[in-house]
Amino acid sequence: MSETDDPEQDLGITESKEYATGDWYAEVVQKANLASYGPDGMSGFIVTRPRGYALWERLEAHLDGMFKQTGVQNAYFPMFIPESYLEREKEIVEGFDPEVAWVETAGTEELDERLAVRPTSESIINPYLSQWVRSHRDLPIRVNQWCSVVRWEATETKPFFRTKEFLWQEGHTAHETEAEAWDETTTRLDQYESVYEDVLAMPVLRGQKPDHDKFPGADTTTTVEALMPDGKSVQGGTSHYLGTSFAEAFDITYADEDETEQTAHTTSWGLSWRSLGALIMTHSDDQGLVLPPTVAPEQIVIVPIWQADTKEAVLDYASELAADLDDAGVRVELDDRDSRNPGFKYNEWELKGVPVRLEVGPNEVDDGEVTAVHRPDGETVTLDREGVNEAVRGELDEVYAKLYAAAEETLDGEIRDADSRAEILGTIGQHGGYVRAPWCGEEDCEAKIKDQIAAEIVMVPFPEDDDHHPDNEASDDEASDDADCAVCGEPAVRTAYYAKTY
Amino acid sequence: MSETDDPEQDLGITESKEYATGDWYAEVVQKANLASYGPDGMSGFIVTRPRGYALWERLEAHLDGMFKQTGVQNAYFPMFIPESYLEREKEIVEGFDPEVAWVETAGTEELDERLAVRPTSESIINPYLSQWVRSHRDLPIRVNQWCSVVRWEATETKPFFRTKEFLWQEGHTAHETEAEAWDETTTRLDQYESVYEDVLAMPVLRGQKPDHDKFPGADTTTTVEALMPDGKSVQGGTSHYLGTSFAEAFDITYADEDETEQTAHTTSWGLSWRSLGALIMTHSDDQGLVLPPTVAPEQIVIVPIWQADTKEAVLDYASELAADLDDAGVRVELDDRDSRNPGFKYNEWELKGVPVRLEVGPNEVDDGEVTAVHRPDGETVTLDREGVNEAVRGELDEVYAKLYAAAEETLDGEIRDADSRAEILGTIGQHGGYVRAPWCGEEDCEAKIKDQIAAEIVMVPFPEDDDHHPDNEASDDEASDDADCAVCGEPAVRTAYYAKTY
Repeated sequence: MSETDDPEQDLGITESKEYATGDWYAEVVQKANLASYGPDGMSGFIVTRPRGYALWERLEAHLDGMFKQTGVQNAYFPMFIPESYLEREKEIVEGFDPEVAWVETAGTEELDERLAVRPTSESIINPYLSQWVRSHRDLPIRVNQWCSVVRWEATETKPFFRTKEFLWQEGHTAHETEAEAWDETTTRLDQYESVYEDVLAMPVLRGQKPDHDKFPGADTTTTVEALMPDGKSVQGGTSHYLGTSFAEAFDITYADEDETEQTAHTTSWGLSWRSLGALIMTHSDDQGLVLPPTVAPEQIVIVPIWQADTKEAVLDYASELAADLDDAGVRVELDDRDSRNPGFKYNEWELKGVPVRLEVGPNEVDDGEVTAVHRPDGETVTLDREGVNEAVRGELDEVYAKLYAAAEETLDGEIRDADSRAEILGTIGQHGGYVRAPWCGEEDCEAKIKDQIAAEIVMVPFPEDDDHHPDNEASDDEASDDADCAVCGEPAVRTAYYAKTY
Repeated sequence: MSETDDPEQDLGITESKEYATGDWYAEVVQKANLASYGPDGMSGFIVTRPRGYALWERLEAHLDGMFKQTGVQNAYFPMFIPESYLEREKEIVEGFDPEVAWVETAGTEELDERLAVRPTSESIINPYLSQWVRSHRDLPIRVNQWCSVVRWEATETKPFFRTKEFLWQEGHTAHETEAEAWDETTTRLDQYESVYEDVLAMPVLRGQKPDHDKFPGADTTTTVEALMPDGKSVQGGTSHYLGTSFAEAFDITYADEDETEQTAHTTSWGLSWRSLGALIMTHSDDQGLVLPPTVAPEQIVIVPIWQADTKEAVLDYASELAADLDDAGVRVELDDRDSRNPGFKYNEWELKGVPVRLEVGPNEVDDGEVTAVHRPDGETVTLDREGVNEAVRGELDEVYAKLYAAAEETLDGEIRDADSRAEILGTIGQHGGYVRAPWCGEEDCEAKIKDQIAAEIVMVPFPEDDDHHPDNEASDDEASDDADCAVCGEPAVRTAYYAKTY
């Protein structure tokens, strides 16, 4: 399949990342062949094309590997959940009323009880954990599924960021003690952080959601947050310590060593293809998609440059180079199409986000060299043909490091401090990004920001990560030790990060 | 997680494979922790537990690897299909009216058009192939998705064999010519055959479905069929050459080299978790699950046998053995539980289908040996501790070969010839299995069998594979060269395999 050969295809990105971020994003997603919009009558759905799905597969392989090394087993639960099962969850907390799609008719049959297409699977997985857990010897139990879920959100669709059906993984675990369950919660948060930092080349902020913004029924919701170029924060993955509330509602109990019945502590955690949206949005530019080598379907494209009299020598040289890299495990594409000139090919592979282009012409053949060009910044390096496999790995690592460094620099520059309501509002209004401010812990104070500017507290750092936290003894930030809430002036208990969100 | 530690769990299989195959199968599936039945009100659904899902993951990894080596790219299409899209498929052929589950309400919204939960995805994938294919340079195009589909069948549920929701893969391709599309069709059938023969240790029969039993709209439906121990045939995977009928209905056309518009030839092919049902059913026995090492979650279990005075030495020896095998890439479990005696452990791991058990006691420690026991037949072999990694691989290969040989012997003994209607009926009635008979090609003749005994033509070998085919010049079976249809007595054109089916 070579979708790119279509001569009618318009390769250029016409929108500007800086001035029309949303339109630019939609254009990149479509022109880089990552996704198409769903059928007529199904707004909010997307078709994930092979180049888009390949990103998800690589992310999944990495995260699934980490899960398996840390005791997680995959399973598969039905995609439908009886309404009465969902209702049980409502007992835990009011307000959990997801926008679900309902099946009421199947075949010729009117169902006695309507079935929800799963919006998340706590209410069907927990009853089985209850059956499977009898003794402390059955704990911990950790199940995960890679699947799609459906949430009938009315808001505007953005491929990967917000779709009515989305791919994700959801993990559900039960443990003997709070300490173990909390450890599980942070282990998964660490792994989500690793996905961003080690696979997607993006730094993230980690912390917990304010109590009023937790997953309903959770004791604590932890999150990794990523900053988008338009200054908004994306929730990159969440890991919930559920306390014993779900275990009580679904009767997940176990006999301890003394044969006394105890209630388990449970967790759940999920990461969706929104992470791909964040990836595309963060690194890409007005030439198109930019990808780190970790997830790029092709890490290297070789573009041979020839005239009639040099064609054979150049193509031989390029083919051998491609074969060597392939043998070395590099994902390499040799673009030897006759029907396209090198300039066209450069543009096309830049649009598609190949991290490093290797140019091979008569000069390279004569000198035993290869010219490497980095996708993010066009930096050009001459490599010796001998030892090229190693050298190419080095260039790929360098591209990764550049992408990470650029994202980190952006993030660092977009965290600003404020200590009054006016300053929070003004700073977010003017710059976007994160505004860090002492907070008393009351929802009311957040509301006074949210009502004015649609920004909210996206994250509260864990005390141990927070050098602005008043309780943090190790802090050298004297000012925060006795800080007052930036909004109400009462004593602050935590540092809050305010931002606009996706 | 150690679900097996539950002292209340009843480990023994109580039903007989020979005398109560269905009940025995259900018991093995549940007691080996492969699957649980779905929630109340959702009969026909199962929960695939980690040990069951691990089998699917290994099968998927193998098949997906073959797909990718042969030009297939994975993608993901929406789980819902608008009714009008499904209707377009009805234009191709009457009678395609799958029992689908319908979503009519979502959130608070009544949908303008109801959405089917996909029963298969031709009708949503083909419109996109139509968009993506413009020129002959875009062909071939091959997309596959691993997903679940829903078919609201009323018949009795059997885990993996027949469930309302099931996991599968579905591949959809378009090609320039009939020859290429037919080559695609047989390539996928070959890969399905390989899954059975090289991964699931099961021989299969390959051929095509009678015309009256093809996938609706297909030109040719090819199938691999597996024999179950109760003498019934299971359709193990199907690969369809669709001709141009779907391309015409969904407008999949391309400009050829002369810029003339041509209609593409398409294929589709699918393999579901029914393959796991066939696997479990074929090899397992009255002690429980039997698995080939290729898919077994644990390939080896080490059971140490100690007294108080030998415990330390035995456990040291066993741990080192486990570490060595693990380093060598063998999936090994060391069962060092204090709370269970060796006999209990043997039974438990036999139930769970671990292919080879290694016993390690004081004698083995003294002699520098390891005792290996094959799950399928209890054969016991003494291995030198030195070089044990290699030796264990040899034992695992031997277990695979034993399973395959046993299944092959059964299959070979269950193919019988018949040349009259009475003989077909009598042979299937008495023995089950396959009855091979010359056939005129008319559905009526099959009906005369089907009406009497619920057996049908499950497969017609391809001419080149069929040494009973009257057209086959190379055949040394003189009798079939001028055979008459076993049912009507008219000249036979093909050989038919009759069997009862799942």
